[in-house]
This record gives sequence, C-alpha cells and structure tokens, in this order.
Amino acid sequence: MKRPWQGQVEHQPLTTVPRHDPHNPLCPGATRANGEVNPDYEGTFLFDNDFPALQPDAPSPGPSDHPLFQAEAAQGVCKVMCFHPWSDVTLPLMSVPEIRAVVDAWASVTEELGAQYPWVQIFENKGAMMGCSNPHPHCQVWASSFLPDVAQREERCQRAYQSQHGEPLLVEYGRQELLRKERLVLTSEHWLVLVPFWAVWPFQTLLLPRRHVRRLPELTPAERDDLSSIMKKLLTKYDNLFETSFPYSMGWHGAPTGSEAGANWDHWQLHAHYYPPLLRSATVRKFMVGYEMLAQAQRDLTPEQAAERLRALPEVHYRLGQK
Amino acid sequence: MKRPWQGQVEHQPLTTVPRHDPHNPLCPGATRANGEVNPDYEGTFLFDNDFPALQPDAPSPGPSDHPLFQAEAAQGVCKVMCFHPWSDVTLPLMSVPEIRAVVDAWASVTEELGAQYPWVQIFENKGAMMGCSNPHPHCQVWASSFLPDVAQREERCQRAYQSQHGEPLLVEYGRQELLRKERLVLTSEHWLVLVPFWAVWPFQTLLLPRRHVRRLPELTPAERDDLSSIMKKLLTKYDNLFETSFPYSMGWHGAPTGSEAGANWDHWQLHAHYYPPLLRSATVRKFMVGYEMLAQAQRDLTPEQAAERLRALPEVHYRLGQK
Ligand SMILES: O=P(O)(O)O[C@H]1O[C@H](CO)[C@@H](O)[C@H](O)[C@H]1O
Ligand SMILES: O=P(O)(O)O[C@H]1O[C@H](CO)[C@@H](O)[C@H](O)[C@H]1O
Repeated sequence: MKRPWQGQVEHQPLTTVPRHDPHNPLCPGATRANGEVNPDYEGTFLFDNDFPALQPDAPSPGPSDHPLFQAEAAQGVCKVMCFHPWSDVTLPLMSVPEIRAVVDAWASVTEELGAQYPWVQIFENKGAMMGCSNPHPHCQVWASSFLPDVAQREERCQRAYQSQHGEPLLVEYGRQELLRKERLVLTSEHWLVLVPFWAVWPFQTLLLPRRHVRRLPELTPAERDDLSSIMKKLLTKYDNLFETSFPYSMGWHGAPTGSEAGANWDHWQLHAHYYPPLLRSATVRKFMVGYEMLAQAQRDLTPEQAAERLRALPEVHYRLGQK
Repeated sequence: MKRPWQGQVEHQPLTTVPRHDPHNPLCPGATRANGEVNPDYEGTFLFDNDFPALQPDAPSPGPSDHPLFQAEAAQGVCKVMCFHPWSDVTLPLMSVPEIRAVVDAWASVTEELGAQYPWVQIFENKGAMMGCSNPHPHCQVWASSFLPDVAQREERCQRAYQSQHGEPLLVEYGRQELLRKERLVLTSEHWLVLVPFWAVWPFQTLLLPRRHVRRLPELTPAERDDLSSIMKKLLTKYDNLFETSFPYSMGWHGAPTGSEAGANWDHWQLHAHYYPPLLRSATVRKFMVGYEMLAQAQRDLTPEQAAERLRALPEVHYRLGQK
C-alpha cells in the first residue's frame, strides 16, 4: 500500500445517465437487437440475452482420442434481469421494497431455470470497470447443463467439511465470525456480511444467512425483507467508501438444482460473493496480474483492515446525505 | 464476439517514453526510493524491490485454534530486473543478443534465489492495463518459502499424469500439438509456441521447450539463443495484432528448487505462460468478471481461431516496417 502509484487510473464514469433512453435496449418500451419491444415494465424485467454465451442446443464435440484433449458440450441459457425501469438508479439508491422485488425475482428465476438445469448462476457486473456495457441497473442469469469450476470446488470443500466435522462449513464459519467479530461488516436478524478470512480482493465480502438455507427460493418473507435491507446498507457503504458508484461483480451460490436437486445437499449453505476491484480510490484499482495469475493472490491490506473501514462508514448514501 | 460494445475502452498508452529520465527509479544512474543510486548498467540490472510484498523475516502468525482459520507465514524476497538501459524499448524491439542477456539473467536469478527458496517466480507485467506502473522494460522475481497455489496445482497435475501415463504431461502435450498443428503459433529447432487447448485469455499462449527441461538454468547456449529468437517473434506478432505495444502478464514455471531441488522432478516440464488481456482492439479488452469469477472462464473466440490469427501475422514489427 506504500508503493507510489504512477500506473493506470480509471476513467470516472459519467455521473449523468438519462433516466430513460429509448435507444437503450434495457429500458421499458425500447426495441432490442432481435426486434422485440420491451414491455413498459414497472418493477423487474427478465428476458433472453440477445447475445447468449450458452445455448440449449450446443452440439457435442464428439468423442476424444486422447486424455489431454477432453471436451464436452456446454449447454444452457443466458437471461438478463433489469432491476428497475429507470437507468439512473443502482441497488443502493433503490428503496428496500424495490430491492425486495429483485430478491423475489432471483428466487423465481432460480426455481424456473433450476427445474431443468443443475446450475443457475445469478451475477451482476456493476460498473464499466467490471465489463458492464450498459449503465441500466441489471444482472444476468446463466443456467448450465454442468456444474461450473467454482461450483465444483465449493461443492467438494463443503462436502468434505461436512463429512469430517458433521456440520456445514459456511454455517460454522458464520458462527465463528460472529464470535471473533474482527471481520464483520454488518449483521442483522437473519444475515451477516463479512470480509472473509480468505478474501483476495481488497474489499471483498461474503453475505451469509444465519440460518442454514440451501437455495434462494427457501428464504422466508422475513428473511427476504431483511436481505433487501442489509444489501442496501452494504452497497451504500461501498458507494460511500470512495464516494463513487462502487464497481463490483457479485453472484449467488446455492445448492445445485435440476436433476441434482433430489440429492442430499445438507452440506451446502447459500451465500453471495461480492468482488469489488477498487483499492485506493475511485480511480485506482487492484490489478490481479503477474504474481496473482502465475502464482498466488496477494492482498495489499488485511481483511481485518478492510472490515474495519467498511464498518466505520455511514449507512446513509453520500448522494442522499448531500441533499 | 458479436455483442455491441458500449463498455469501457482503455486509454492508449503514451507512445513517447523518454529514453532516459533521471527521475525514473529504473533508469541507469537514477536514485531509488531507498536512497541507493543505480549503476550505469548497460545490459540487465537486478535489484531489491523497494516495496516488497514478501520479506525474509515475516513472523509466524502462531498456532491456529480452528480448522477454518489456518494461516502460515509467507517469507521471501522480491527483486526487480531491468531488461535494458533504455526506457523506450520493449522486448520485441530489442535485438536477439539483448534478449539472450535477459534469458541468461533469468537463469542466474533462478539459480541464485533457488539455492534458498523452493519457488522462484519470474514474471513480467507489461503495460498499464496489466498494472505495470513503470514503462521501463523490466520484470519481477518473487522467491518464496512455500509453493504458491498455481505451482501446487501444476505440481499435482503433472505428477498424476506421469504416474498414470509414464511420461511428463507437457512433453506429451507439446508432441500432440505438433501433430495436430491447429493451435500452433510458432515452432523452432528447440521451442514451441501454441494457444493451449485450455486457454482462457483470448490470445493466451504457452511457450514450451521441445526437449524435456526442468528449469531455466538447464538450457543449453543453443536453446537460449533459440528462445531469444522465438520470444522476439512471438512478441512481435503480439504487437502487430492490434498495432500497439501489446500488454500481457507472463511468467516462467520450472520445477521447485531450494530444499525441494533434490526430489524427483521427472514429471515437471519447464514452460512460460503469456496472458494478454486484449480481445478486439488495442483498447477493448476481455473482462474476466461476473460469470468468470463466480462460475467458470468462458472464451469469446476459440483457441484455434486465436492461433490462426497469430500465425498469419508478420514476424517484422509494425514500427520497424514503417521506416
Ligand atoms: O509490483 P508492482 O509492479 O508495483 O505491482 C503490480 O504487480 C503486482 C504483482 O503481480 C500486483 O500485486 C500489483 O497489483 C500490480 O500493480
Ligand atoms: O455479458 P456482457 O455484459 O456483455 O459481458 C460481460 O460479462 C460476461 C460474463 O461475466 C463476460 O464474459 C464479459 O467479458 C463481460 O464484458
């Protein structure tokens, strides 16, 4: 953290996004790339990604002739979910009931796509720095015919911990962090936010239910309300950290679904990861490059320092406080 | 690849870097942060990083009280290696004998630090987009008291393959790619460059010796000359791809050293990885974000398409051709 920084600084994103732009394919009433016209939606809006990375009918590459050249078809669907009809809001600037509608939509799409696919990945890329190409508040949902790499690793580790210690890894982990306190960012009746012991991004956080919950659709109405409120607080703190619309990628990891749904998933605890790139300011990010790509991730500040800074930040958004 | 791109575009780096800047701590004769004055070096120059991420005397965190909270001291040293006395050159613009001096310096530093440490990670972050904060041509060398994550994974996979198939994974892999040809970029008497079957970055490549070699110091003079020449060709193609000084992170992976050096490393094949971020142009990069961070890497073009594009590019640098 003491190194002088003469390297790349990021553009500050335009602060004035028009509330409605008929040429933005994510807006109500706009025409999308495939010619369809969006409804005049008032809450969330889910539609098929016009440029999907996964397709339901991807052909099989056929049998392989060598152990080092193994490939399999990756089948699936890609959806986009708008959070709100306005382009000039983000989750922390939305009301708790509006965020609750997003939580409900996440639970529904997990049920809908999880009926067919073993993995439903909900993720949000927020901000140009995180590859987001449209400022309209939205996330993506990619459902696949296979368990992706990260899901497989979480599956393996959670299963091994349960069989060795007789309880779910992340339930015990949350309990420990509540006792230790030094990495906690926010707690509420039903949820915890903490900077995990293993965090690699400077202000990475983990969002965990206190109760053992396998998947989003299992959340009770009270847990959903409480989740909406703690998300608003976390994302407000994030924005307040550098007084900017804080970029991140986030996503949910629940137990596998589809044909896997019937198996025993007692070892799996639902959780969300937040991976924000900023390190020192609104324009100086952490680069995960050379040593990180070739050897091992290394942090520039400790998880405890990050948690302390996030804890100290106000829960009122800097843009609302100024009014 | 068909998605319209309205997202982040990168700054084009300044094309005019002064050849010598007395205020640049990497230049010959400059004063560094610790007050030391650099010699008037004429070839390569190795010195201790003034802001090291690893230190030889990092204290032990002490015993842990819980299986989920395990930490160990990461001890080591961080060095910086300048490739050339001039700030306005890059490896592809250096002569083959100048690159050969870099190869020799890599071999020497591996021997020197490898006498004490089990892992010596040589890596280059090239370009502001890859977190490089100084345009002077240089790389870094971080030696550690432990095998980093990626080294452990490569160790596990190479060992398993050898015990199952009786030969080193990457020796057989190189042989197969020579037969299959579709992912080859360059071949020479002693080396291969290819876009690996498992590549995740758009124009990622793997540099492999044809012979079974465990570590850089084992390379013969002829292999070192040939390496310098194939590196110049590869990096020239990279610069020619989008007519820009092509950013990347690269690094070498040789068999472990230090107290591990005496073990049997027959399964380990020396290799270098190149991870360049650009996707569509000099300013539009691949973002490894949401789905990639939370689920699995996904490519926007196939390795075979990337190899074909790289193969077709001239081996004369666009800046020299213009003269
Ligand atoms: O050591 P540098 O050049 O200051 O820093 C660069 O390389 C390091 C090692 O890959 C990274 O951890 C830093 O994020 C990056 O900016
Ligand atoms: O789908 P989008 O928003 O066009 O694209 C973005 O998210 C994808 C999924 O994380 C990434 O593969 C792309 O690199 C990124 O630009």
